Amino acid sequence: MILTKDGIKEIRQGLGQVALFDQTLATVQLEVDAEIEKGIDVPVPKDLAGGYTHEQHKTNFFTLQKAGVLFQITGDERYSVYIKDMLYAYLDLYPNLDRHPAERSYARGKLFWQCLNDANWLVYVSQAYDCIYEWLSEEDRQALNGGLFKPMADFLSIETPQFFNRIHNHSTWGNAAVGMIGLVIDDQELVDRALYGARSVSVKAGAVDNDGGSIISQDQEMGFLAQINHAFSPDGYYTEGPYYQRYAMYPFLIFAEGLSNKRPDLKILAYKDSVLIKGVYALLNQTNSAGEFFPINDSQKGMSLASRELVNAVSMAYHYGSQDPSLLSVIASQGRVPLNDAGFDAAKAIGEGLAMPFIKPSIELSDGANGYEGAIGILRGGDLTLVMKYAKHGMGHGHFDRLGFMLYDETGEVIQDYGSARWVNIEHKDGGGYLKENHSWAKETVAHNALVVNKDSHFDGKVKEADKTSGTPYYLAAGESVRIVSARETKAYDDVEMHRTMAMVDLEELEHPLVIDLLSVQAPAETRYDLPLYYVGEFMSSNQQLQTNNDLTPMGKESGYQHLWAEAQADLTGDLYSMTWFNKKRFYTLTSVIQSGDQMIMTRIGANDPNFNLRRDPGIIHRRTGGNTVFASLYEIHGSYDYSTERPLNLFTSIADLKVLHQSAEYVVVRFQLNSGEEYQLAFSLKDESESSQHAVKSAKGQCTWQGVYEFKKIK
Amino acid sequence: MILTKDGIKEIRQGLGQVALFDQTLATVQLEVDAEIEKGIDVPVPKDLAGGYTHEQHKTNFFTLQKAGVLFQITGDERYSVYIKDMLYAYLDLYPNLDRHPAERSYARGKLFWQCLNDANWLVYVSQAYDCIYEWLSEEDRQALNGGLFKPMADFLSIETPQFFNRIHNHSTWGNAAVGMIGLVIDDQELVDRALYGARSVSVKAGAVDNDGGSIISQDQEMGFLAQINHAFSPDGYYTEGPYYQRYAMYPFLIFAEGLSNKRPDLKILAYKDSVLIKGVYALLNQTNSAGEFFPINDSQKGMSLASRELVNAVSMAYHYGSQDPSLLSVIASQGRVPLNDAGFDAAKAIGEGLAMPFIKPSIELSDGANGYEGAIGILRGGDLTLVMKYAKHGMGHGHFDRLGFMLYDETGEVIQDYGSARWVNIEHKDGGGYLKENHSWAKETVAHNALVVNKDSHFDGKVKEADKTSGTPYYLAAGESVRIVSARETKAYDDVEMHRTMAMVDLEELEHPLVIDLLSVQAPAETRYDLPLYYVGEFMSSNQQLQTNNDLTPMGKESGYQHLWAEAQADLTGDLYSMTWFNKKRFYTLTSVIQSGDQMIMTRIGANDPNFNLRRDPGIIHRRTGGNTVFASLYEIHGSYDYSTERPLNLFTSIADLKVLHQSAEYVVVRFQLNSGEEYQLAFSLKDESESSQHAVKSAKGQCTWQGVYEFKKIK
Ligand SMILES: [Ca+2]
Ligand SMILES: [Ca+2]
Ligand SMILES: [Ca+2]
Ligand SMILES: [Mg+2]
Ligand SMILES: [Mg+2]
Ligand SMILES: [Mg+2]
Ligand SMILES: [Mg+2]
Repeated sequence: MILTKDGIKEIRQGLGQVALFDQTLATVQLEVDAEIEKGIDVPVPKDLAGGYTHEQHKTNFFTLQKAGVLFQITGDERYSVYIKDMLYAYLDLYPNLDRHPAERSYARGKLFWQCLNDANWLVYVSQAYDCIYEWLSEEDRQALNGGLFKPMADFLSIETPQFFNRIHNHSTWGNAAVGMIGLVIDDQELVDRALYGARSVSVKAGAVDNDGGSIISQDQEMGFLAQINHAFSPDGYYTEGPYYQRYAMYPFLIFAEGLSNKRPDLKILAYKDSVLIKGVYALLNQTNSAGEFFPINDSQKGMSLASRELVNAVSMAYHYGSQDPSLLSVIASQGRVPLNDAGFDAAKAIGEGLAMPFIKPSIELSDGANGYEGAIGILRGGDLTLVMKYAKHGMGHGHFDRLGFMLYDETGEVIQDYGSARWVNIEHKDGGGYLKENHSWAKETVAHNALVVNKDSHFDGKVKEADKTSGTPYYLAAGESVRIVSARETKAYDDVEMHRTMAMVDLEELEHPLVIDLLSVQAPAETRYDLPLYYVGEFMSSNQQLQTNNDLTPMGKESGYQHLWAEAQADLTGDLYSMTWFNKKRFYTLTSVIQSGDQMIMTRIGANDPNFNLRRDPGIIHRRTGGNTVFASLYEIHGSYDYSTERPLNLFTSIADLKVLHQSAEYVVVRFQLNSGEEYQLAFSLKDESESSQHAVKSAKGQCTWQGVYEFKKIK
Repeated sequence: MILTKDGIKEIRQGLGQVALFDQTLATVQLEVDAEIEKGIDVPVPKDLAGGYTHEQHKTNFFTLQKAGVLFQITGDERYSVYIKDMLYAYLDLYPNLDRHPAERSYARGKLFWQCLNDANWLVYVSQAYDCIYEWLSEEDRQALNGGLFKPMADFLSIETPQFFNRIHNHSTWGNAAVGMIGLVIDDQELVDRALYGARSVSVKAGAVDNDGGSIISQDQEMGFLAQINHAFSPDGYYTEGPYYQRYAMYPFLIFAEGLSNKRPDLKILAYKDSVLIKGVYALLNQTNSAGEFFPINDSQKGMSLASRELVNAVSMAYHYGSQDPSLLSVIASQGRVPLNDAGFDAAKAIGEGLAMPFIKPSIELSDGANGYEGAIGILRGGDLTLVMKYAKHGMGHGHFDRLGFMLYDETGEVIQDYGSARWVNIEHKDGGGYLKENHSWAKETVAHNALVVNKDSHFDGKVKEADKTSGTPYYLAAGESVRIVSARETKAYDDVEMHRTMAMVDLEELEHPLVIDLLSVQAPAETRYDLPLYYVGEFMSSNQQLQTNNDLTPMGKESGYQHLWAEAQADLTGDLYSMTWFNKKRFYTLTSVIQSGDQMIMTRIGANDPNFNLRRDPGIIHRRTGGNTVFASLYEIHGSYDYSTERPLNLFTSIADLKVLHQSAEYVVVRFQLNSGEEYQLAFSLKDESESSQHAVKSAKGQCTWQGVYEFKKIK
């Protein structure tokens, strides 16, 4: 199914000649041999995630899958015997099991507390079963098919339709599990059930899952093909974000791989304009320079291209896609390959020196099944990566972060998104699940580099409202030296239109590209704006007089403010706010245009946090009261520090001045000056995205004229 | 002087054959060629450190030294001409200079704001001058000797005796500078002045430097030999700590190197039982696994074996010492060598594969010129490094940290010392000098993992009192599986005797050595103890009910407490406090014995910090009121976390119980139990350090008997 007869032949012939494959094989062999040494352990299910029975069944399915592959590659019957013995142990156990004793899940499993994990088991174990299927006697096959696998497939589908017939990543696992075992035992009905849903059974209207998500989709679509239709935008973006996409990709791709090999007629990888392969590229594009995913929505930071799901996905995209040599460099950096046709193909190509660098472009990834529901925009220039989110909300895992952004350089985060408030699988922290501060802090607008109006989150913090609409892509330019992303959000607050335009420009005078941030807002007079910025590092200095607070109380009672301390504030004076921070041997400077009455608050996360669940990270909030306005800022990365010479280089900003020359609902024009005297100007049209339109606006420096959406130029 | 004729011959013959030397040479050549390309710039002195004229003169002396070496090695006259031209530029400038316009220093220089930097200049430039001395005409030599170098040597010595005739690291630079130029120009009087002081001039009694340090030593010793006598203990420890030792070592070693080559009769490297070479080993032993120095006293963290001073020092200790092959692995890790006889010798030996691992032992480094004034104790076991300080105060740069400790594993800090409150050379932070929070926070006892009595620092925070005495070494054991350090402090507080015993023991059941911490205190009833612990990482959980504060005020008004917030506290119940934290993919658990009435306070640094000079690091304070007592704790390093599998291993502590079985002025006995059932006991004699004494004490578990200072054993 995943390993083909031709593939196995080629792998066996190539053993000892393809370094990356051989190394992975040796590692896996050590792992599996160690497990075989320990003996078979199939306990009666009892525990939740992290507990003994849970972790043992999980270890079992990973080991079985690997043992199957080893049997196919080496022909060593120790592996097939191990699998057979283990399967018979499950055959002894499974038929007598009721649903798991823990009652936490809306869809309790049998081996695990939730069907999701049972489906994980079946996705992996069906691969092991496939690897020994021909080796088994007909008698064994009948016993296992009838006593273990068919009942399990029925349990996960027709007996639990609230799990199987959803449009949801849980169901993708269920669909793949049932379909894969169907492919193995050649049961067409199971494969169809996987592809099109368990249409004979239905779910009560109004049923919801543990997160309050509704079970039935409006149009009653179901099954694997429907999951593909709904899960991915045409660009391969997954509305819950890359952290969840990474998790969901495995069942999508592994079942698709099985279908490709066993049901080539379905052309599953070409389905919806090859969106599964596009999904892999979308994941690669949603990483920083360390290969870590952008922590959009509920994401634990640190998940990366090193994960086993991506190890499988990238080799598969190489093998079943267009043999893109730039994927090979990613695979080489992963340091291991899946032990199958795809992995062997990729490892062989790497061995032949075919790898090319994977260059991440400045790119917009649309959201929504048809690509018309917002997007994320990613700008890349020099060391820098900028991501702006104006996508869909992301359902139950979404954050209220419209037009929020994150900025990275190759040392890591420069301006961070908090990510989720969760320590995945770490039992100390409420069993490793989402913490209550995930809801009360991490999702809220004030936890993001996004505009807060009147101290309330976007959509009043209501997921259902947020899910109804998306941000509006306006413009993305991926030029040689100028990259721009621009998008609008008009629904997050009543009567407030936000339009954020971020540019990343190469200036010959600066070490790194400069980031320009223009957040235009049209709103009633006396609107109270709070614009947070979560810089990463140690505050060095600012050009303003800070008043420090020696009596700290939470900044508010709700919408995330209850978790913030105001350590200091400044009533801003002059024309500019300038602040430098330091992190990982580099300096960073923010320069923002001040309006009269503006305030800057130095914040610290950590109030109302009885279990110390939140990181004590710093931020600033630019506070302004007014009507239509523009928040205009520059982010400069500069200089370095060497701890062994104690020598700082270029430790002061090069920005001498920044001015908004024009602001209106239609245009924004800014000009900035370097200390060395050069001046640059960015003029941007907010309402007319035609590249041929002529624009002329009055500005403090006289008339500005240009053609097209924007003009960025050196004035002197 | 530094390069010998034989050395040069050998280097020239070996060019192209000694990789590490060739690489360093190529790098230095690029650097110097780039400077030559820029042209000569010898500005009129004006700026402080960080400013243009300061940095330019600093660049000049480094470049000149390198150019000299390059001339000797390559014979390329571009280098000698460059040096000569530069020296003539200084000859044009120097004779017309008055003292530097900035008036900050007690000993203003001419090229720089302080004589210290002028001496730096002369130490480096005399090496460059030596390299071209024979190449210059007699006329040039006379002009430069008479117009530049002799006046400079006189200026730094007889014209500024408050700088030259001290026992102080500043004077070491002055002595070396004068002595080295004396060696170059063969002026015996200058060499003698360097070795024995400028005895013709005197300093006003009671004169002090900028830090308030007194200029004249009690016994009127002066000169380079006196510096060696006073600066180092017989173990090569330097009372200000390794950060300052690293800085001071360069003039000690480079002048000694010159004397070794030009005045072998002095046997300078054998002086005081080869203490200069021992000093290099002492520095190597005062590093964590990343090669970073322990931040004892005023130290910026991050300074390491990679510094240029150590690059010079380690090769020198190899070449002029006993050709210790374990130094070669340190040199290899530095990645470069000094371009001289010593560096060539080391690089050649590395190329020949002679390098051996440098194993850092568990060791005590005595303090004080005669080694009788306290010490630091360093325990090494597995991945772990523990340092306890019971040395002298460390003069103006000392911290009130008697019996304080730091703990590292190979990921870095586990339990930290704050270090200094300073960003060296970073102008944003008060010009890069010591910040006022260095005094008000970093030096205070509560900023350390050290016992605070009655909310006041040791010695009432008075340097003069602290300098009068030192901690008292009691016992150090460097066993195969048990290492122990034990020391007393009886002067820091009136009527309070502290005796801390820390053990690092290998247990077969645990992944890493376990640290046992027994702080015995004899004090009047109702004494108020605060024992801080600065853990590094994110709090995971504790076994106690924390009361979180939503209104934060500084914990006190002085002695460092004014900089602490109490984020939460717990009135401790039961027998144990257990707390787990997480850092860099590992788990750490503290287990402490509780007495009735004890409190634990969760602290955060950052109150009263108007310029955001302090890191917002967490800590806990174990608060107890009582008389004689023991604080007994275990520190366990355990488990791991993988961000790509999200799988934690061994995330809970293995410690089930810890009990103090006996506590008195003479003994402390503790027993602990693992979750797996094993029990271990440590019995320790606090007053009798004989290895043959028999001890018997009553304990809650019956009579304990043992021989010698301690017994650590498995009970079951
Ligand atoms: Ca509201
Ligand atoms: Ca709200
Ligand atoms: Ca005091
Ligand atoms: Mg977020
Ligand atoms: Mg809310
Ligand atoms: Mg300290
Ligand atoms: Mg004080």
